[in-house]
Amino acid sequence: MQPDYSSRAARIMARIHELAAISEDADGVTRTFGTPAFLQGRALVQSWCEAAGLATRLDGIGNLRARLVSANPRAKTFVLASHIDTVVNAGKFDGPLGVLMGLDLLETLRERQAALPFHVELIAFSDEEGVRFHTTYLGSKVVAGSFDHGWLTRADAGGITLARALEMMEADAARIADDAIPADDWLGYFEMHIEQGPVLWERQLPVALVTAIAGQMRVELTFTGMAGHAGTVPMDMRQDALCAAAEFILIAEQFALTHGRGLVATVGKLALSHAASNVIPGEVVCSLDLRSPDAGQLADAYAALKEYTEALAAQRNVALGWNLVQETAPAACDAGLNETLAEAIADAGHEVVALVSGAGHDAVPISAVAPVTMMFIRCYKGISHNPLENVEIADLAAAIEVADRFLARLAVDVARQQAEATAGLRG
Amino acid sequence: MQPDYSSRAARIMARIHELAAISEDADGVTRTFGTPAFLQGRALVQSWCEAAGLATRLDGIGNLRARLVSANPRAKTFVLASHIDTVVNAGKFDGPLGVLMGLDLLETLRERQAALPFHVELIAFSDEEGVRFHTTYLGSKVVAGSFDHGWLTRADAGGITLARALEMMEADAARIADDAIPADDWLGYFEMHIEQGPVLWERQLPVALVTAIAGQMRVELTFTGMAGHAGTVPMDMRQDALCAAAEFILIAEQFALTHGRGLVATVGKLALSHAASNVIPGEVVCSLDLRSPDAGQLADAYAALKEYTEALAAQRNVALGWNLVQETAPAACDAGLNETLAEAIADAGHEVVALVSGAGHDAVPISAVAPVTMMFIRCYKGISHNPLENVEIADLAAAIEVADRFLARLAVDVARQQAEATAGLRG
Repeated sequence: MQPDYSSRAARIMARIHELAAISEDADGVTRTFGTPAFLQGRALVQSWCEAAGLATRLDGIGNLRARLVSANPRAKTFVLASHIDTVVNAGKFDGPLGVLMGLDLLETLRERQAALPFHVELIAFSDEEGVRFHTTYLGSKVVAGSFDHGWLTRADAGGITLARALEMMEADAARIADDAIPADDWLGYFEMHIEQGPVLWERQLPVALVTAIAGQMRVELTFTGMAGHAGTVPMDMRQDALCAAAEFILIAEQFALTHGRGLVATVGKLALSHAASNVIPGEVVCSLDLRSPDAGQLADAYAALKEYTEALAAQRNVALGWNLVQETAPAACDAGLNETLAEAIADAGHEVVALVSGAGHDAVPISAVAPVTMMFIRCYKGISHNPLENVEIADLAAAIEVADRFLARLAVDVARQQAEATAGLRG
Repeated sequence: MQPDYSSRAARIMARIHELAAISEDADGVTRTFGTPAFLQGRALVQSWCEAAGLATRLDGIGNLRARLVSANPRAKTFVLASHIDTVVNAGKFDGPLGVLMGLDLLETLRERQAALPFHVELIAFSDEEGVRFHTTYLGSKVVAGSFDHGWLTRADAGGITLARALEMMEADAARIADDAIPADDWLGYFEMHIEQGPVLWERQLPVALVTAIAGQMRVELTFTGMAGHAGTVPMDMRQDALCAAAEFILIAEQFALTHGRGLVATVGKLALSHAASNVIPGEVVCSLDLRSPDAGQLADAYAALKEYTEALAAQRNVALGWNLVQETAPAACDAGLNETLAEAIADAGHEVVALVSGAGHDAVPISAVAPVTMMFIRCYKGISHNPLENVEIADLAAAIEVADRFLARLAVDVARQQAEATAGLRG
């Protein structure tokens, strides 16, 4: 590892800790969209951007946007981004890591007075987690041009609408439509983020490239059997809603285990009505969270699990309610950007591992309008959304080296393409 | 059906409805131990007993005791009993049915001026359900001589101790030790009760004899895995506490189904810590209620399920907490009394069906000091502890006929035994 990367990693880590100290609560890190802590944290990041010589502005949804402008008259815009809002009782790295690594990249490019054939825009998205208004990606949807103005009337738990929250943040919601990056201006999008999963931790690797972000289907199931006395109803006369739910849980687990290719199935919530140790459960409500990077596999898994569950409920004489409550399509990363990123990882001497992101990211809405890729950075035991969230400084240094090499390769590629296009025009 | 039994059944049913109208709440039936509604209900039953010419008294735990005294100088005491306290939002039949059928039997014996070779004591137990002091069988344990004086310091939810509650009921707790029926005085014990299960309903029979009251083991289990993000942790790297619990639930169900002979296993409570649809469950706490009429089978099932559960937890890399929180031994009914009851059922023209009681009854503590038997009466769909609890009047009439015939056979048997004993002494 070159000492340069180590000192840059140390600077990033210091900023991560400084930003994490700004929180709604004293104990942990909580900086939800639009709160005083959020505004204070954003102001700190903005001050760092300006100290680095970048032009900054705050857009209509409260995103912080900083630009390194290319002298190239045909320059498109390449975006480095992640988010600076957090969940409640969050860790320090989920979101801020990508923003502060992006800042470090721009800062270094400026220090080197590097001439790039594209503009680079660093964006600190204002709302990715969706904690306050129960809608994710508010920040990146504005940049992607897919913001729905109907959301402005949504209210938070305190009855404050999104429109009012933006006023209180001094954000100009009227300009939101102008804050999208026009389709023709996009060169691409690169997001750096902790893995939030255990694969890099287990494989002892610092980084991975991401080939796709899984689509998700969320189902609420209700099993309705017949409550009864645990002592007096013979086993073969029961309609036990919990036994039906248990069979469903194991079928979902087994299905995902055997089908593989990134398919995951999770029952995370389960509640019994009128539960008592001496009462046969009459009603159970539970959730199913189903994810896959492959839209076809996701649809097939959904249909198969629905069919299996209907069959087991019928066989147990238990009624089944099956309610699809959320659906998000998978987002594929760009093959060209992924190839460049794979080369950068290999250049830096690391094994190239391709992962699917099971969690959603701002790259999802952006992928509808621009080529995107992501780099995952190993986190401690795969833990995220938790104060235990951690990243080793050596991994940060490795990631910065890969990102540096990625941008350098991208500059060469873009310059070559522009030269070829110019030659083509001339030829 | 003789018209006599029908009119007696109608009288019993009228009393059941009159007693059920006395409740702590206006909507349903709630008459927990020692409350004004309980005292008012007991006074009503006592007034019926006295109108029937029976000598009554209230004992130290508040049981109502009415006696029909035999002229036989060597008479022992045969007890007819059930309870008049209820659970919260109870039905009308669980408990009162047996008391009011017993009253009808004594009333009829007096009307007939029948001479029995034994005393008959009718007892309306004051506390079987244990709702108020979280201890069951207070009434019958006093009669059995197994009352623990330490219970007097237990407090109800309002902080009133059992001792103080007895004072408020004007019950003389100091006399509790004298209220037990001495071991030598017992001839036997007969309890009539709704089945609280669906077997008679399904088989379309009015009554059954009970061969045993199941023993019970209650376990609290804790599965501790590792919480994680539902999207980012691959299926084969999970330690899902709910999947482990689901496997346990199905193993317990399957074990009871395949082993039969009255073994039942129920998981009635299950709770997840920090549940969310997108979080792999890290901790699940659930209950196991295991019952069998056979002490050996119960112990074997307990050991086997513990072993299976330990194995599945180990295989899933999930920690298991296994805590036995309650244990009651099975109680067997007396073979001789059961034979007499079977004959009475056959005499009345019904198929003789022998059931195991999965629910506990006052017969359990009494079985430690005296021969006991029970007769179950069909209830609507097996529903109990519920305002929907119901008994058909035709089944009541059938049950009264069987009880009549049972007492008559018992009188003949006892008279013969006494004659043989006298002959033996002379010979």
